[in-house]
Amino acid sequence: MTDQSIAAYLSTHRQRHLEEVCDWLRIPSVSTQPQHSGDIQKAADWLAEKLSAAGLENVEVVPTDGHPLVYADWLHAGSDAATVLVYGHYDVQPVDPVALWETPPFEPTVRGESLFARGASDDKGQTYIHVAAVEALLATTGTLPVNVKFLVEGEEEDGSQAVMRYVAENPAKLAADLCLISDGPILAPDKPKIVYGLRGIWAGEVTVTGPGRDLHSGMYGGAVHNPNQALAELLAALHNPDGSIAVPGFYDDVRPLDAAEREALAKVPYGEAELLAESGVPVAWGEAEYTVTERIGARPTLEINGMWGGFIDDGFKTVIPSEAHAKISCRLVPDQKSDEIGGLIEAYLKKIAPPTVQVSVRTRQHAPAVLVPLETPQLAAAVTAYERAFGATPVFAREGGSIGVAISFQTHLHTPLIFLGFGLPDDNLHAPNEKIHLPNFYRGIEASVIFMQEVHK
Amino acid sequence: MTDQSIAAYLSTHRQRHLEEVCDWLRIPSVSTQPQHSGDIQKAADWLAEKLSAAGLENVEVVPTDGHPLVYADWLHAGSDAATVLVYGHYDVQPVDPVALWETPPFEPTVRGESLFARGASDDKGQTYIHVAAVEALLATTGTLPVNVKFLVEGEEEDGSQAVMRYVAENPAKLAADLCLISDGPILAPDKPKIVYGLRGIWAGEVTVTGPGRDLHSGMYGGAVHNPNQALAELLAALHNPDGSIAVPGFYDDVRPLDAAEREALAKVPYGEAELLAESGVPVAWGEAEYTVTERIGARPTLEINGMWGGFIDDGFKTVIPSEAHAKISCRLVPDQKSDEIGGLIEAYLKKIAPPTVQVSVRTRQHAPAVLVPLETPQLAAAVTAYERAFGATPVFAREGGSIGVAISFQTHLHTPLIFLGFGLPDDNLHAPNEKIHLPNFYRGIEASVIFMQEVHK
Repeated sequence: MTDQSIAAYLSTHRQRHLEEVCDWLRIPSVSTQPQHSGDIQKAADWLAEKLSAAGLENVEVVPTDGHPLVYADWLHAGSDAATVLVYGHYDVQPVDPVALWETPPFEPTVRGESLFARGASDDKGQTYIHVAAVEALLATTGTLPVNVKFLVEGEEEDGSQAVMRYVAENPAKLAADLCLISDGPILAPDKPKIVYGLRGIWAGEVTVTGPGRDLHSGMYGGAVHNPNQALAELLAALHNPDGSIAVPGFYDDVRPLDAAEREALAKVPYGEAELLAESGVPVAWGEAEYTVTERIGARPTLEINGMWGGFIDDGFKTVIPSEAHAKISCRLVPDQKSDEIGGLIEAYLKKIAPPTVQVSVRTRQHAPAVLVPLETPQLAAAVTAYERAFGATPVFAREGGSIGVAISFQTHLHTPLIFLGFGLPDDNLHAPNEKIHLPNFYRGIEASVIFMQEVHK
Repeated sequence: MTDQSIAAYLSTHRQRHLEEVCDWLRIPSVSTQPQHSGDIQKAADWLAEKLSAAGLENVEVVPTDGHPLVYADWLHAGSDAATVLVYGHYDVQPVDPVALWETPPFEPTVRGESLFARGASDDKGQTYIHVAAVEALLATTGTLPVNVKFLVEGEEEDGSQAVMRYVAENPAKLAADLCLISDGPILAPDKPKIVYGLRGIWAGEVTVTGPGRDLHSGMYGGAVHNPNQALAELLAALHNPDGSIAVPGFYDDVRPLDAAEREALAKVPYGEAELLAESGVPVAWGEAEYTVTERIGARPTLEINGMWGGFIDDGFKTVIPSEAHAKISCRLVPDQKSDEIGGLIEAYLKKIAPPTVQVSVRTRQHAPAVLVPLETPQLAAAVTAYERAFGATPVFAREGGSIGVAISFQTHLHTPLIFLGFGLPDDNLHAPNEKIHLPNFYRGIEASVIFMQEVHK
């Protein structure tokens, strides 16, 4: 019944919690690769079973057009208590390039203070934290201080279309006083951070088509516009020399940063020195009139995530390919319209493309940005949770990443979003050797317990 | 003893010749892919056996640092007769993208008048033509009108380093009055063409390196120069808007085309209409002040044969890659120095590269251009061979492709080069669905017989 008894419970079950999250991490639930669809189902079933074991009720694995959702709730705290909707995702990024992993991505391995596995931080590890917190509260107190609903999806890394539809169609079932989202980093183990803004995303593919078939570059080179070259020319024209994006209309709807917000962002203890140390680049890049923190969190971006054309195996082939391709994603800020970005890019590329090639743009996913008002009352419980579990007061920051469904929670459930992150900047999200810092993992469980004890309607 | 008896022999053995070349084509002797090294040896052994069976002597498979050479000779025509060095190659290009082949690349298939297989035209099919010609002459006449030496290599598609060394080190063994090379196309079955110029080549790889590891594009995009974007910017800067190459010094040694040669090239019945029909591009591209024929055969070029960086599988990954890559090849004309091109490209790219990334260039292969004087007396026998076997007088043209060893024959053996091609422009060299036109294949055997009968010292 006391905090001591919860602390004792967490200490006793520390090793089992680690083993359980490892079991989940062993399932290669990569949402964007069709060969893993069986693993996606396995990962959903695993979570459903774990939520039941923790004492959650009404557990379901909800089939969708895409990957299944996992829902569960516990609604016996009474109508005066807050209702917390816990969101997470059990799908993970692809592991390519797999050769760069020090240990296999789906064989979770503890090295030093970290647990290495794909999904350790993004987002199975952070989702499991709340399962363990609810389990500890129910096991030691027989009750929860709040009503809780879990909604965990399986295609966050692929656009979150299914969960967004589900939220739109089930506002009564999912009704809550706030959404709790743990899917991001703090600054350092002793420097917690509360994210109050997340950028939106547009992602799609550009294809440049030239000749009707692959050609011998010795027999046609110099007289045919090579699609690789044409694509390079088009991609190079997407940015201006000052680092801004050259697509006409791209910035039209961008809500300007006001002085108060620039001042708040300037307090984030992160700048060019930290960027260089973390990334290993020799110098920073981008819009000179914005700070590194602003460029990453508060300005829209356009990045070429993948690019390919022609012969790319070992060896050599003197070929002019028929097509060349690029995968592009844009991070969007308020009030950019995510459903218009693909059209703007396509119109621009078609306008500047020479008559020697054809260019097309296919939208793959999009979601607008979200911004949490700093006066949201439930943020106080998050501050307390970090102060007591991590021993430090969190700063407030806007974040570069995107969580597609966040805007749906705002739009359809009208709930404030509380981002309670437990990752670290060097967790290697979307990269080889993803990890979670184990002290953060255990403090995260404590923080989740404290948040549920402290939060009010 | 008569031409009739040779014609009758060729008619009788038509089917066997086809079956034999199919046997050879079944061996996937891709020289640039290490997994095929066993096949390379098999293809060399197959040819050695066939040369013996045809009546050639001193047959050897010569080991080298790279892939083996096949040598054979027949030297009983007397010292008044010419000595012909027949050059060919038994290695083939990779088959990627294999999904675009209508029938598997190493299962030779006759469809219509063509035999489809990787290497059918480049160059097993064309090399075999001379084996069949020598066989027919020896079988029907018991002798040859010329002394013959065969030198067939296994790494023409990978830079010909071994054969170039072998030629340099064995000038006495390989001494000849001319080199006969069949490794290219004529214009159409009734429009033979004699190539008198071949461009040289430089091929290498460009690598752009940015961050020390792959980064999450949502967390670093906009503040780090994406290597994909940096590579696109560098590649886009390799050409000027007028289609010329922007690398300083690239054209310094180019021997200008004189009026007489431009006039001769203008007679080649090939222009923009043929280029568009063959390649399927909507409009031609390149240096406007040169004709399509000049751009392809007589001007140097720079082509991006392959380009890749970041996530290029199915699905999506919001990543900023640590590196991005391009495979580039240049076709060179007299008197460009092939060993200096890599340095010029690297110096230019390093000069224009921003401080946000590092760029490096690695040379993979290079060979200078060759030009055969139009007054070379042995060209007359080639004209007669085409006139009698193909029923039409050949035109003279400079060709876009490169045959690395050709310059070695000129430099070390001091022999004229006679290019007796039997391919067609739509043979899909280096592309899916490579083929040889079977009427050309059979006429090629006749033309080789006639050439050997007609050529003099």
